Amino acid sequence: MKIAVLPGDGIGPEITEQAVRVLKALSTDGLRIEMEQAPVGGAGYEASGDPLPEATLKVAEQADAILFGSVGGPQYDTLPRPQRPEQGLLRLRKHFDLFANLRPAVVYPELAHASTLKHEVVAGLDLLILRELTSDIYFGQPRGVRINEAGEREGFDTMRYTESEIRRIAHAAFQAARKRAKRVCSVDKANVLETTQFWRDVVTDVHREYADIELSHMYVDNAAMQLIRNPKQFDVMVTGNMFGDILSDEASMLTGSIGMLPSASLNAKNYGLYEPIHGSAPDIAGKGVANPLATILSAAMLLRYSLNQEATAQRIEAAVRKVLAQGLRTADIAEPGKRTVGTREMGDAVIAAL
Amino acid sequence: MKIAVLPGDGIGPEITEQAVRVLKALSTDGLRIEMEQAPVGGAGYEASGDPLPEATLKVAEQADAILFGSVGGPQYDTLPRPQRPEQGLLRLRKHFDLFANLRPAVVYPELAHASTLKHEVVAGLDLLILRELTSDIYFGQPRGVRINEAGEREGFDTMRYTESEIRRIAHAAFQAARKRAKRVCSVDKANVLETTQFWRDVVTDVHREYADIELSHMYVDNAAMQLIRNPKQFDVMVTGNMFGDILSDEASMLTGSIGMLPSASLNAKNYGLYEPIHGSAPDIAGKGVANPLATILSAAMLLRYSLNQEATAQRIEAAVRKVLAQGLRTADIAEPGKRTVGTREMGDAVIAAL
Ligand SMILES: CC(C)[C@H](C(=O)O)[C@@H](O)C(=O)O
Ligand SMILES: CC(C)[C@H](C(=O)O)[C@@H](O)C(=O)O
Repeated sequence: MKIAVLPGDGIGPEITEQAVRVLKALSTDGLRIEMEQAPVGGAGYEASGDPLPEATLKVAEQADAILFGSVGGPQYDTLPRPQRPEQGLLRLRKHFDLFANLRPAVVYPELAHASTLKHEVVAGLDLLILRELTSDIYFGQPRGVRINEAGEREGFDTMRYTESEIRRIAHAAFQAARKRAKRVCSVDKANVLETTQFWRDVVTDVHREYADIELSHMYVDNAAMQLIRNPKQFDVMVTGNMFGDILSDEASMLTGSIGMLPSASLNAKNYGLYEPIHGSAPDIAGKGVANPLATILSAAMLLRYSLNQEATAQRIEAAVRKVLAQGLRTADIAEPGKRTVGTREMGDAVIAAL
Repeated sequence: MKIAVLPGDGIGPEITEQAVRVLKALSTDGLRIEMEQAPVGGAGYEASGDPLPEATLKVAEQADAILFGSVGGPQYDTLPRPQRPEQGLLRLRKHFDLFANLRPAVVYPELAHASTLKHEVVAGLDLLILRELTSDIYFGQPRGVRINEAGEREGFDTMRYTESEIRRIAHAAFQAARKRAKRVCSVDKANVLETTQFWRDVVTDVHREYADIELSHMYVDNAAMQLIRNPKQFDVMVTGNMFGDILSDEASMLTGSIGMLPSASLNAKNYGLYEPIHGSAPDIAGKGVANPLATILSAAMLLRYSLNQEATAQRIEAAVRKVLAQGLRTADIAEPGKRTVGTREMGDAVIAAL
């Protein structure tokens, strides 16, 4: 089995390093994984003028899954769009058809204090957002800036979803719910957008194959409110690429510890890209203080979904819970005034706890 | 001066009734306002098969401003789109070119407990969201459901913004900030959407006329997080119609008392539509328990922006603060176990406090 490791920019390299160490510790224990590293994002641009270099794509194609760090940084903000770091990520998603983005928002009991929400509102939160990742207004054509009929400049983009694109993410949502509390909330703006009325119709149709799953529909503005009012009402939330971008970030911030949250982006063959939900945090890059746990937990998801190693995935997750219980905290999840550990020390602790 | 009163559906009639009583109480006191009532939304559909009946539009055209209740209800959910209640509202916005939607998210000290966020995170919150209201993917053409080149059904919509549409909302934002803390945060998704990269460029250009105002830019996913992490970092947030729909509802829920929040939708001549931020709440409609304060505060905004009656607007706002200080609470803003008052009793109290 082979993993492409794409550390990217900012804190990406230091956090993926710890996840790689965890995977290596497991291999001395019997897990047979080959890992190959390649530059992506700003690092790809530095290496060969492209946020997704040809050679990096080849490494990813020869692997069974991608472990991804994070991309972006202020030094790349003024590059033309095709050279910008995030294009590396968007092109990987599209190239491998990674349509199903699983973003769990989980509150660890030890870290519930870190949320800006009241304890009783978020304690025990365990919500899975399923975001469609390869279509919608992210990729729809036509798009650009043009002179319109009235002779004025205008920017434009196209939101679109085909029936099969909606069907496959709906199936993924119902199947995910089957392993959980069996409730799916589909989020749209069917009262205004034709695309999302169509989305609602197709999801409703797919639901006829899942009599054991409860389906509800919610407008995106209401969903943004309900996540704050009572996030625990949700089990699986499924939505399009654009709304999913917004709602999944909102949901992850509810937990107060975004440094803990992994994600998976899967295609129909369970090839996947695994990355922490947090960004590249340029302000703390290279200082050895970033929290590697979201990336380590992303590696666990990788073992579960792409390599079919459920037991090993659970071993990593148990180790992470153990270090939390031991009281180890990187700065982002520490209670004010408490002792903190660095990136590498946290990696060491997880390896020791395996 | 003339006001068109459009109560709409659900709790709309009972809450606008109280706002009308407040305005009438002020007229015996010297304010000269004529009011004319007309059906809109589901009520418009019941009256004449159209959520915005011709006669209602005429009433609105002959007025200086619209006081709007709320529209919608489950009984209308299966109507074809053009007959649905919300189309009445969308058409009013478009017809009167009400491009500037002011949505304040304010936490009243007496009600801070009602928020699901920790007290220190929201206490003193005073944020103004300026949402563009007449363009974007809400109105862009083409849109619909079609069979695509591959022979498959697909839904599609068009996001678009012209330069002048962005310019005028940017001016509105900078001018609003001038009366406040002088900071504007413009929210977009410039890293993915061409429309919003164009938005960012135009806002940046308009900013050159406002050297006294600080401008920052934020991606919409990050904004959805920052509103939860630290909402008090914002003064004025300006954004497009779609993102504004989501973020303004998120922001209003931060306050915990959405029953308190008014809104104004203005055109270039300060003609405006004023409505509470909350919806038609069909579950409590007709029971006399709805909170009328958001609608009463909307009437105050109407006096301020469309009728240029700042002193009278402040009189209403002071009266609302007084009844809160007196401890009067409708059910939605009451602490558990405390005594509550009904819709009419709350209206009485505001009138007495004027
Ligand atoms: C970097 C950006 C293009 C990306 C997105 O919008 O999808 C990010 O926000 C995410 O959610 O993974
Ligand atoms: C009812 C609906 C069309 C409307 C909107 O999306 O604009 C509402 O959500 C609002 O925010 O006023």
